[in-house]
Amino acid sequence: MTANSDVVTAALLVIGDEILSGRTKDKNIGFIAEYLTAVGIDLKEVRVVPDIEDEIVAGLNALRKRYTYVFTTGGIGPTHDDITADSVAKAFGVSIDVDPRAVALFKERAPTLDLNEARLRMARIPAGAELVENKVSTAPGFMIGNVIVMAGVPSIMQAMLDAVSGRLRTGQKMLSETILANAREGDIGTPLGEIAKAYPETMIGSYPFFDGKGPNTNIVVRARDASVLAAAKLAIENMLTQVNASLVALRK
Amino acid sequence: MTANSDVVTAALLVIGDEILSGRTKDKNIGFIAEYLTAVGIDLKEVRVVPDIEDEIVAGLNALRKRYTYVFTTGGIGPTHDDITADSVAKAFGVSIDVDPRAVALFKERAPTLDLNEARLRMARIPAGAELVENKVSTAPGFMIGNVIVMAGVPSIMQAMLDAVSGRLRTGQKMLSETILANAREGDIGTPLGEIAKAYPETMIGSYPFFDGKGPNTNIVVRARDASVLAAAKLAIENMLTQVNASLVALRK
Repeated sequence: MTANSDVVTAALLVIGDEILSGRTKDKNIGFIAEYLTAVGIDLKEVRVVPDIEDEIVAGLNALRKRYTYVFTTGGIGPTHDDITADSVAKAFGVSIDVDPRAVALFKERAPTLDLNEARLRMARIPAGAELVENKVSTAPGFMIGNVIVMAGVPSIMQAMLDAVSGRLRTGQKMLSETILANAREGDIGTPLGEIAKAYPETMIGSYPFFDGKGPNTNIVVRARDASVLAAAKLAIENMLTQVNASLVALRK
Repeated sequence: MTANSDVVTAALLVIGDEILSGRTKDKNIGFIAEYLTAVGIDLKEVRVVPDIEDEIVAGLNALRKRYTYVFTTGGIGPTHDDITADSVAKAFGVSIDVDPRAVALFKERAPTLDLNEARLRMARIPAGAELVENKVSTAPGFMIGNVIVMAGVPSIMQAMLDAVSGRLRTGQKMLSETILANAREGDIGTPLGEIAKAYPETMIGSYPFFDGKGPNTNIVVRARDASVLAAAKLAIENMLTQVNASLVALRK
């Protein structure tokens, strides 16, 4: 990965009827979000679309013009509902055919497997794409332009992400600190908003949850600059001390 | 719910930086997908966008023109990053202010809670919206036009979904059958594709997974008509018997 001070962005296009029907619970969005954050790529948008060519093409074309990279998951298997590779070729306006490099991979890694019509479907790769080999599945993913096409099965997707990440440009990592407020969100909302305004280079999020005793809040501060992050964190900690002291005083 | 033979569609707009950074793993997409399928609403698209007004407005306007309903999750709390209600008002071109009905709810259900500036933020409701009260949180969701605005915390979102679903139009339910193939996806892809063509009123999905012994496949058939579903299921079962018999013969 080449790190630089630019911001590198990404979108994720999740392809699959099974996610939209609720039959399969997606496990890839959270994994990819965390992975990209860790390597310095900002995930800015996710879309889930059905196994319909026009929807895939439209989603892909909208996203690839807008972000540095677009990752896709799902739809690259051997069955009739696996239409991602053909849809990507259509979006890029390139041809697609059985790729000798993908066939060679099959022959090398699964020599006893019948290379029937269905399996050859997994070797269909758009013209001009680079293969993304991986250690879990014989069928490769691929990268064309700024689009990275991966499997939907989480273990295979994760292996493909590892295999491709070294080829990607990355930006300065977003740093993050989590502060447990020990306060209700409604009691800290106003002063927290003032801190967010005072530190425009940070992103401050507030996430309510129920701990054992009642409502509590996690505050997450994010920034690319470590000293800005530290200053905002200190301001939040001081605010929490003040708010909690005045709430205790009120209850007396 | 009013059931009829129309197809009723929906999209989901998930609003939140924390999902895109990977800090919070979304649990709402799968729940809402399954819930809507069960009541006869087809979820056709999901988008995840950051806490940025322009992104929320653009996503909402794209989706609400296209689908019967749009559900949103997230961004209706008391802090500065909770901008969903204001963004929805902007998308609809209506005003927004502290709503006396929401204030009354707070006073009735949490009379000891300080109704400070932050908490009043949760009572900001776009003009013309109906409240979506719920049993978990004092702060209501709301429905305006075909858009249903819900909390991001799963327990609150689920209560809001229950509270609103009775007001929604629903279509004929999609029926579904799952068939365990006991075969590799690559061995059944071609004949399964032929069955999918022969039964155009069904949607047939194929989902590979690893069972204890090796690669296996679940086949899911969906249709609105029970007899069409049963016929396609039988065709798949017959195909599987044939394929598995010929594979056994090959191995002899």
